[in-house]
Amino acid sequence: MSKTKVAIIGCGTIANSAHIKAYLANPDAEIKYFCDLIKERAEKAVKDYGCGEAIEDYHIILNDPEVEAVSICTPNNGHSTISIDCLRAGKNVLCEKPAARTYAEALEMQKVQHETGKVLNIGVVNRFNTGVNIIKKLIEDGELGELYHVYVSFRAHRSIPGLGGAFTTKAIAGGGALIDWGVHYLDIVMYCLGDPRPQTVTGQAYSKLGVEMENYAYTSMWAGPPNYKGTYDVDDFVTGMIRTEGPTVTLNGAWAQNIGVGESYIDFLGDKAGIRLQYGKEFVMYSAKNGALLETTPKYTSRDMFQNEIDGFINCVRTGEKSPAHIDTVILSSQIIQAIYDSSEQRAEISFK
Amino acid sequence: MSKTKVAIIGCGTIANSAHIKAYLANPDAEIKYFCDLIKERAEKAVKDYGCGEAIEDYHIILNDPEVEAVSICTPNNGHSTISIDCLRAGKNVLCEKPAARTYAEALEMQKVQHETGKVLNIGVVNRFNTGVNIIKKLIEDGELGELYHVYVSFRAHRSIPGLGGAFTTKAIAGGGALIDWGVHYLDIVMYCLGDPRPQTVTGQAYSKLGVEMENYAYTSMWAGPPNYKGTYDVDDFVTGMIRTEGPTVTLNGAWAQNIGVGESYIDFLGDKAGIRLQYGKEFVMYSAKNGALLETTPKYTSRDMFQNEIDGFINCVRTGEKSPAHIDTVILSSQIIQAIYDSSEQRAEISFK
Amino acid sequence: MSKTKVAIIGCGTIANSAHIKAYLANPDAEIKYFCDLIKERAEKAVKDYGCGEAIEDYHIILNDPEVEAVSICTPNNGHSTISIDCLRAGKNVLCEKPAARTYAEALEMQKVQHETGKVLNIGVVNRFNTGVNIIKKLIEDGELGELYHVYVSFRAHRSIPGLGGAFTTKAIAGGGALIDWGVHYLDIVMYCLGDPRPQTVTGQAYSKLGVEMENYAYTSMWAGPPNYKGTYDVDDFVTGMIRTEGPTVTLNGAWAQNIGVGESYIDFLGDKAGIRLQYGKEFVMYSAKNGALLETTPKYTSRDMFQNEIDGFINCVRTGEKSPAHIDTVILSSQIIQAIYDSSEQRAEISFK
Amino acid sequence: MSKTKVAIIGCGTIANSAHIKAYLANPDAEIKYFCDLIKERAEKAVKDYGCGEAIEDYHIILNDPEVEAVSICTPNNGHSTISIDCLRAGKNVLCEKPAARTYAEALEMQKVQHETGKVLNIGVVNRFNTGVNIIKKLIEDGELGELYHVYVSFRAHRSIPGLGGAFTTKAIAGGGALIDWGVHYLDIVMYCLGDPRPQTVTGQAYSKLGVEMENYAYTSMWAGPPNYKGTYDVDDFVTGMIRTEGPTVTLNGAWAQNIGVGESYIDFLGDKAGIRLQYGKEFVMYSAKNGALLETTPKYTSRDMFQNEIDGFINCVRTGEKSPAHIDTVILSSQIIQAIYDSSEQRAEISFK
Repeated sequence: MSKTKVAIIGCGTIANSAHIKAYLANPDAEIKYFCDLIKERAEKAVKDYGCGEAIEDYHIILNDPEVEAVSICTPNNGHSTISIDCLRAGKNVLCEKPAARTYAEALEMQKVQHETGKVLNIGVVNRFNTGVNIIKKLIEDGELGELYHVYVSFRAHRSIPGLGGAFTTKAIAGGGALIDWGVHYLDIVMYCLGDPRPQTVTGQAYSKLGVEMENYAYTSMWAGPPNYKGTYDVDDFVTGMIRTEGPTVTLNGAWAQNIGVGESYIDFLGDKAGIRLQYGKEFVMYSAKNGALLETTPKYTSRDMFQNEIDGFINCVRTGEKSPAHIDTVILSSQIIQAIYDSSEQRAEISFK
Repeated sequence: MSKTKVAIIGCGTIANSAHIKAYLANPDAEIKYFCDLIKERAEKAVKDYGCGEAIEDYHIILNDPEVEAVSICTPNNGHSTISIDCLRAGKNVLCEKPAARTYAEALEMQKVQHETGKVLNIGVVNRFNTGVNIIKKLIEDGELGELYHVYVSFRAHRSIPGLGGAFTTKAIAGGGALIDWGVHYLDIVMYCLGDPRPQTVTGQAYSKLGVEMENYAYTSMWAGPPNYKGTYDVDDFVTGMIRTEGPTVTLNGAWAQNIGVGESYIDFLGDKAGIRLQYGKEFVMYSAKNGALLETTPKYTSRDMFQNEIDGFINCVRTGEKSPAHIDTVILSSQIIQAIYDSSEQRAEISFK
Repeated sequence: MSKTKVAIIGCGTIANSAHIKAYLANPDAEIKYFCDLIKERAEKAVKDYGCGEAIEDYHIILNDPEVEAVSICTPNNGHSTISIDCLRAGKNVLCEKPAARTYAEALEMQKVQHETGKVLNIGVVNRFNTGVNIIKKLIEDGELGELYHVYVSFRAHRSIPGLGGAFTTKAIAGGGALIDWGVHYLDIVMYCLGDPRPQTVTGQAYSKLGVEMENYAYTSMWAGPPNYKGTYDVDDFVTGMIRTEGPTVTLNGAWAQNIGVGESYIDFLGDKAGIRLQYGKEFVMYSAKNGALLETTPKYTSRDMFQNEIDGFINCVRTGEKSPAHIDTVILSSQIIQAIYDSSEQRAEISFK
Repeated sequence: MSKTKVAIIGCGTIANSAHIKAYLANPDAEIKYFCDLIKERAEKAVKDYGCGEAIEDYHIILNDPEVEAVSICTPNNGHSTISIDCLRAGKNVLCEKPAARTYAEALEMQKVQHETGKVLNIGVVNRFNTGVNIIKKLIEDGELGELYHVYVSFRAHRSIPGLGGAFTTKAIAGGGALIDWGVHYLDIVMYCLGDPRPQTVTGQAYSKLGVEMENYAYTSMWAGPPNYKGTYDVDDFVTGMIRTEGPTVTLNGAWAQNIGVGESYIDFLGDKAGIRLQYGKEFVMYSAKNGALLETTPKYTSRDMFQNEIDGFINCVRTGEKSPAHIDTVILSSQIIQAIYDSSEQRAEISFK
């Protein structure tokens, strides 16, 4: 069987730090195109990786029957349109998270996936994280007993990415801290809980610390230096509560806040045991046995989750298997994020009951 | 002016550790009665403090025209009835927190206070805490800028008081972690925020870890040893979100949880500065100025807050001044607590808009 | 606009550790000459940095019309003569601190600057330090209230540089601990205070610990090993008090002392708040609010102050803007240092009133 | 030989904490009178110590030929008048420090001492401190080589005594931080240096932090609670420089300052060795030998310095010996303190050359 020809659309940070390396390491994949509106980026990729062709217009990919698989690594405003164009052109798609700027866009993507039958996976890469999968298994095995509540905390002191750029412009990104960071946390929760349906969602999102851009104090800034002539109209703090058909979930998230103590964890509370997962790191399990309180720290070997994600995608393309990153599962967290933003505007709970 | 004659109703922990000592140290007060259904407790107080008369029936107090002030330190189920009886008998009342088991009971107390015009203060003692008052002043002075969110975390690993006793019996206490602990945190928030009206309240309360009492593992237990023949039907975990006419508030509280990391703080998030208050301890303020991130640690001398509370109550009795602990202000957190319990039962947000 | 051609006169420690790197990093500057009386040093620079021409005689620079900017990094005895020669030849000058060995020399430099209109900045690099500028702004914003006193402590146990060399020879350096170290501290004070005029200056300078050179015990020595055949006739301890039109300033400084506790800080005492700045490091602000004593620790991102200094100089050269390091501001600390030395000889206060 | 009859005039803190106990422990002394304008204090002393007679008017003492020795422990405004009255009545006097409110008052006391020939010792108790005497001996023995400078730091964050009371009222105390605290430090310096004559004195005293009394934040307050209706017109910060016929001395002193780091030490800087004495505690000596830097920490047994002081006074009374606490030696620090206050008003150095 010949190698699967791949195209990369969008040659920015996530493409270079994650996708491309993983395709290069996959024995069944071969990159044919690097596509970017900024031609120099595409050309730099061709030079750096010694393969593929640099192009500006992704329609070249749509019209090339050799290409079977596409990674979409553009800003969020490209996700829906390009994914749909690719699917309709018969391509299999791995689209970076979040699925789209809005739930409506994500639903349209799902609809086209169903119509075309091609692969549409979303880059919810934590579903390929070793620790997350161990937690999911512990929950399924009943080790936590009845899991009744999950608390999610993703709060940084100062971490707005690229102030005034794509990340902080709602028309491009769809939102801020919630859709950019929170999406990962919520997705871990949904995955570990078996993707339960939401029943009520309430939340409030605030755009406070970055909005007067020139007054925003920070110690470092990733995703580029501030662009004080750019736009800042997204949430830098979000709070909310979700009732699902399973546990309740509450969350607090901050790209920036006037509390100088960072937190990035998920607490799974069960009546037999609980787990605190430090995002991207280790977890600890707390339980009790025969009157003794137990604290358990697991050790395990982690495989790079991006490699798992790309290998999984290529496998889907070649075998037709359905991935845990399929749009059908990811659609739920898209629905929840939309509901938090809607609830915030209406200042009232959204009910799906 | 002669000394104000005081009666203590309920001679348990809070009476002995806080109220009685403070009355003895107040130059304008004199304890005339120690009243307890368990006669030995009242007699022990007479002996220990060398003053007053030991009685079982609080109606003796109602009928003694000399008594002007009453501290009610009974379990929560006595608060409403005894307060109302005292007010109607022309006594001034300091009733321990929570005001009552339910919002309906608290409203009735407020109504009788209005009818009688006598003092009805609730034991929201943190309103007399030095650090809390400094925070309130900082907020009022605009040091935090626009205060948009407050997060409240009161989560213990294992801290259920008197398993199977008055604290864990809903008919007596009205609830568990929320009404017993959460009431203090919520009251600090309401006080510092200037007692804003709630607009929406959603929450979920769980009775999980204590419910199979004999399996409950703990390292120590205050308020008496477990009574495995008693009742456990109250919340040991609670979560919720409140929209007020001012900031939003989210909370997580646990008397017990399978996460072995205790937290007991309140985060006040403003757009100019934020404060993390460690409950009963110090606070830290975080701000930014001219591009620098500032962390400010205050030092101050704290006067014993129970002494302040009692001195304030005696002052109200003698001068008619209105206290920050007046039932009119405390009624709001009573309303919120009730709404969290109601929302939990209905699994839906309660709206006051 | 073409790049500004730069010459470096004196290729010793400060040139290599600070000036040259900063010019290389400045997009508008280009080094044309490295000049040093020790030819090997100049040749090493050409080789190390891959640019420029190595010369011994700085008159070549004076006669090259292409050179617009000169950094003078020679020992102090070269500062005045070379600066004046450069200015008269139409060059713009950045001269290392101190401006000169004596106030008279500095006044002559200032006079020639005024006559020629060319740039004459002094290497008072702390005026380009991020933390120092934050303090200056806090003072200007009134955060310290009335600033009434500044205490300056720069006291090392054993830190005489290059015993017996240029640093310890009065005819070359003009003085010791005060003119070499103290100049930086005094300059920070003057800058933060808005360069107030001195009214009275008293001081005493001592040459005690290094004077019997072979008996001088030390643990390490920068600026080269001891030269026991050299000269040691400068101050290793200095004390003094200055009244300005603003606050008073007292200082103690030691290159070496028989107290084994190093100190290097400046205390700014205001009636609303005070600041202790650890030289070259962080600062802490102390204040009080509503009865609480506050200790504030700022965090900020520092840009390399030498880069700021050089960028600022090049900007002055290209735009004609006046720098905070202009000889007109630095002249005051030169006057104060001279007055301390004069007062020390006369054993009496010098008055400028 | 019969016991020496003693009278205590002023029965406040220093009398009770130091003088009285020491007289009771001296085998040759016997207290006959406790005198205080507040009669209760005198009566309490009679009761507490089981001896003497309580009186209000010190003229009773003057007229009692049995009394040979008097301790004057009143506020500073009583020192001069009562000492002179006692001397003229033929009594021997131990007067608490400072000698008087002003140098003029102290000179008058000295004059009367010379005329009467009776003992007039001042309570410069550190001259009887074991560690101080060891340091004095080390200096005299030449262990420090040439002693060229002394730096004195007595700086507290918040330590104003009895805000609004005798300590902070210039008409009573003569001054603040300098005359109350600084006097001890200066006296140690003068004593250890062999009481050298001052040549120039410059200084500046500030009344800044206590002056708006109700805004003064503190964590505790000795010498009684604040009296906001009282007076605050004394120095809470002082700085200065003294040239003596021996070393120079610089000082910084604060009853209160907006720097949250307390210091209370004296640095003696010699060319062979130096000493840092922590006030009231241990000292460390720094020296060098054969290229090695030495840090020496002495251990010794201290006798209570107040006992030494009183025993010394009784010995002077009974033998006529001259004490190191004689007004003739203490007069110099009185002169210096006056000169600092004068220099502060004139904003210029005072010269005694």
